[in-house]
Order: sequence, then structure tokens, then C-alpha cells
Amino acid sequence: MTTIKDVAKEAGLAVGTVSRVLNNRGYISDQTREKVYKAMEKLNYQPNEVARALSRQKSTLIGVIVPLVNHPYFSNSIDNIERTAIEYGYNIILLNSDGLAEKEYDYLEFCRRNHVAGIIIYYGSLDGSKFSDIGIPIISIERHMQECTANIECDNIGGGRLGAQHLIDQGCSHLLFINGFVDQDDTSGHRRQGFEEACQAAGVSYDIVELVQSDYRVPENLSEIEKIIDSEDIDGVFSSSDMIAARVYRLLKEKGYRVPEEVKLVGFDDSNVAEFMVPGLTSVHQPVDKMAQLAVNYIIDIQNDRVVPKRSILPVSLTVRESTENY
Amino acid sequence: MTTIKDVAKEAGLAVGTVSRVLNNRGYISDQTREKVYKAMEKLNYQPNEVARALSRQKSTLIGVIVPLVNHPYFSNSIDNIERTAIEYGYNIILLNSDGLAEKEYDYLEFCRRNHVAGIIIYYGSLDGSKFSDIGIPIISIERHMQECTANIECDNIGGGRLGAQHLIDQGCSHLLFINGFVDQDDTSGHRRQGFEEACQAAGVSYDIVELVQSDYRVPENLSEIEKIIDSEDIDGVFSSSDMIAARVYRLLKEKGYRVPEEVKLVGFDDSNVAEFMVPGLTSVHQPVDKMAQLAVNYIIDIQNDRVVPKRSILPVSLTVRESTENY
Repeated sequence: MTTIKDVAKEAGLAVGTVSRVLNNRGYISDQTREKVYKAMEKLNYQPNEVARALSRQKSTLIGVIVPLVNHPYFSNSIDNIERTAIEYGYNIILLNSDGLAEKEYDYLEFCRRNHVAGIIIYYGSLDGSKFSDIGIPIISIERHMQECTANIECDNIGGGRLGAQHLIDQGCSHLLFINGFVDQDDTSGHRRQGFEEACQAAGVSYDIVELVQSDYRVPENLSEIEKIIDSEDIDGVFSSSDMIAARVYRLLKEKGYRVPEEVKLVGFDDSNVAEFMVPGLTSVHQPVDKMAQLAVNYIIDIQNDRVVPKRSILPVSLTVRESTENY
Repeated sequence: MTTIKDVAKEAGLAVGTVSRVLNNRGYISDQTREKVYKAMEKLNYQPNEVARALSRQKSTLIGVIVPLVNHPYFSNSIDNIERTAIEYGYNIILLNSDGLAEKEYDYLEFCRRNHVAGIIIYYGSLDGSKFSDIGIPIISIERHMQECTANIECDNIGGGRLGAQHLIDQGCSHLLFINGFVDQDDTSGHRRQGFEEACQAAGVSYDIVELVQSDYRVPENLSEIEKIIDSEDIDGVFSSSDMIAARVYRLLKEKGYRVPEEVKLVGFDDSNVAEFMVPGLTSVHQPVDKMAQLAVNYIIDIQNDRVVPKRSILPVSLTVRESTENY
């Protein structure tokens, strides 16, 4: 079978240059491009994506492991990863892990057996030591693990501060932070840390509830939130995700609290839940598009022996909607 | 390279039987299973998913083409397809078409070049004649096209009837149907047909608005809805999707109408938007899980030369939530 190496030899060019032409990436002169096309034609070289996936050097498949696809944050992330991948001539194989270590391990093994170009992995429970020697780039998003080739996160501490500060600026005087998924990852812990820092700096009192969540969709111990809201004089709630905020909004409404007049509400992620809610949910915006772009670019960079940062932290912003402003 | 045929020969079994063992499908006696495993071990046969994808006969990759992943209906569908595929030892390659004919064509070509086992395609604008000779099974979901190998739909006419009848049963006397994506597909037309049939049978008056939607997320001419709601005495609104219903709810709220007390609201799809809304949205439930299962099963059946129905219509049901009941 004709390989990219044969094409490079025939064209008198480096393999990397041919690859850049094939993947339509970086600056390539028309002359060089022409040389590559001529060599390809002469050797009847057909870049077959799946065949290329078989050659460890130039796979164009990316394994994407998420806990569940049917979730506003993950579906938005996957959408962005797929769009970036396609731009560079890559495709994604999608894998639902349910956040279970066992499934994550199976899927990492599947990716390894099939020589994917790289793996993008989101939240889960697999111990990093299980894949430290996998030999394929693993990019984690919002899940810091030493064993990953690169970790991409948003500024969770900054986001925590931003959400709390906004509630304080809107006149709230007793805040509640709801922490979902208190787990081995730092994500929600960092959001909470930023929240506490902002409250302490402003001298504003606050409570914290740690939710039990065994499933991504349904927080289980909302009764604790109910108790605190009833007993304390909470006028601002900051949830560590939009999904939890949506549940809390329902709870507030059932208990007769008006949002935002009596209680203001902030979420995290700025997913489509925040947009669809009425009132619209003020939320800390994760740059999901940029995080997806970086993840795909890092995999391609690693394939091309370029250096990528071990840890990348992207800035967040606040999208203000009606849940914190009278409307 | 050892193939499945070698394994079958060594085990003294049919290729189809070995395939059933490998894919863990259908009834297989322990004795047969044992024979296959022994032959695999003896020949050192390792089923490599990507390698298998290269052999036209036994690809284990399924191309899934959706307009956009970041949409509650599609992400739910993809989630279900991935889970079914994995169960049978298949994987999905995910492709975002934005509903554009050009992209759909590119992705169908990509799938053909890579000898996928089959393609599952959702809503889009590509003319069926463009792929009638592709030589790979194409299963469409909620998009009826003669050129597809099989079409899987939910009972859209029945769903239209169900939603309208529920509003009538709840005491509504002047209904409004909002038709999104009036296009080459029958889907929304069928929902509307069922709606009209139910209204006519009950002697209930109704209006219809056809929305312009160039983007899946944002209906453009909500002003027409506003006009009708203001001028007519509408007390029940049925939207052809949950996403549109969520927008309409916002509009009703902004205009000061109470839902469900003054206007009752029904959506279609029963996606997570319906669940997250407060009040929860009554919605016609599409059996997305069963439709996904059928689509994957049909692809495997076609690979194994089994007959599949050209058109499969699955029953719908109604999930009643607070948007049509006082709470």
C-alpha cells in the first residue's frame, strides 16, 4: 500500500509537509501543494481516513469519552469538538462512559487498539494510573489529572468569584453555594473556593450545600437546600452547574419565592438550559468552543511532535440574564 | 491477516455464527461459543474494530449525520444510538451537517470511502437522488425518503392528534398550532394534519402559524404568534417541537399570560427542555430510544442479509406536565 512516506519521497518533500497539505493546515505554497498532488496522482495515493487510522503515525480519528451525550454541557462540547475536528480533516468516535471507571477503561482500551490520533476525556472516575502508559495523547477537559498529556480547564476559581461578586453587586446579603459532584476532580471545589473568596472579601455571609449526585441529571438531596432556604434568609443562590440551578429554580418556585425579586440565581456553564429557562439564567460562561479547539489542536500538535502545555486554563465571563435582574 | 472466515473454517461453523458470537447477538449455545473462542485463540484472531471497518463486509463503524449535536432532541438520539451500537460491538462516527445539503453530501461520501457498516441520517436538505447508488445502508430517522434503505419515524399524525385532544380535554376552546420547519420533509406537516383532524372532529376552532426557521435554535417570526395571541382568544398552544414551545412560553410570560391558567401549552419530542421548564412542559413523547435501537439493528441486519422494513412507524404517547394542568 502506498503510504504518505512514499508520497513525500516521490515529491522530494518532508512527510510533515505532505501531511500539512493533506490536512490543509499551516502555510503551504502553491508550488509545494502542486508537487504533493502530482506525487499522489502518480502513486495513486488515496488518503483513506480509516486506513490512516490504522497507521499509528497519522490517524485522523479522535476518541471522545463523555459521561453522557444527552446533557447540555457535553452535547455543546461534543458539537464544538466535531466542528473543529472536521476543519482539520479529523473525525470523532463518540463514547458514553456514564462516568464509570470500568467503561472509561474499556473505551481507552478500544481507542488504543484502534490507534486513534488522540483521546479527549471529560469527567469520570477512572484513576489516572490506569492509563499512564497508554501511548496515545489523552487530553482531559475540566478534569485535572497528572497522567493526561494535557489538561484543559476553564478558570473555575475565577468563575466562582465572578458569580458570587455579581450576586453581591446585585445587593444580595446572604448567599448559598450549591456544590454538585463533590468528587475526585477539582472542578466544583475550585468554583466553591472562588465563591468563598469573594464572599469573605466582601464580608458577606454564606452557606454551602454539598449535593449528592449519583446521576448527572438528578441531584438527590434537594431537601437540604429546602431546609437552609427556609431557615436562613438566603437572597442569592449560586449553583455549580446550570442543571442544578434549573432544579433549584423549580424548588424556589414551588416554595413561593419569586426569582429574581426575592432570590437571585446564578448557574455555571452557560449551556442552553440557561438560555431556555424563563427567567433566563445568569450563568458563568465556559468558553466551550475554545476549549474544544485547543483539545483538537493539541492532538494534532502532538502528532506533529510539537510541544503542548501540560495545563491550560481559559478565562471565563458572566452572561447576565433575568434570574439576577428585575425584568 | 486472520479473518473471521478463517475462524469459521477452523471452528467448523458458518461465518454468520462466528459473527453472532463476536457481536454477542442472537441465541448461541455455550458449546458453539466455546468452539469459536478456541478457534480464535488457536489462530490468534483479534477482532480490531477499525481493521474490520476496512473490510467492506464487516465494518463496525456507523456514521451518524445530524444537523447539530448541541440540540436536546439530537443529543438524546445520539446518546441512544451510541449506547445501542456499543452493545453490539459497533461504534459511531459523529457528523454535524447543519442541515446543509453540501455538508450532508460530503459526509455521505466520507462514510462511503471509509466503508462504514451503515449511515443513520436525520433532518437535512439533501435530495435523495444524490445517494441512491451509494451502496451502503442509509437509515433515516424522522425524514422520509424513498431512496433510503429504511425510514424510521414516530407516528407524527397520531402525535398531532394526541396533543390537540389533550388540550381539548383540558377545556381549551380555541387552539393555535405552531409549525416549525415547514420543509421538504413530512414530519411537521403530519403533526399539523393530526392536530387539524382532532380539532375538526371535536368542532374546536383553531389557527395555524408557520414559523420561518433558518436555524434549528431560533424561530424568527415570533411576531406573528404575538399578533394572533393578542387578536384571537387563544387558550391552548401546540408547538411542533419543545424548543419552539420554550420560546413561546417566554413570549406568553412577557405578554402577561399565565400558563397553564390562561393558556395551556403542549410541545413535541419530550426532550429534556420539556423536563427542565418551569412549569414542566406537556409534550408528545417520541420513543427516541426505540428508534435508535431499530436504526442500529437494521444496519446489522442488512450486513447479515436479513430483510428490514422499508418504513417503520413507532407509536407515540403523551407526557403530561404542569403546562396543561393547574399546579
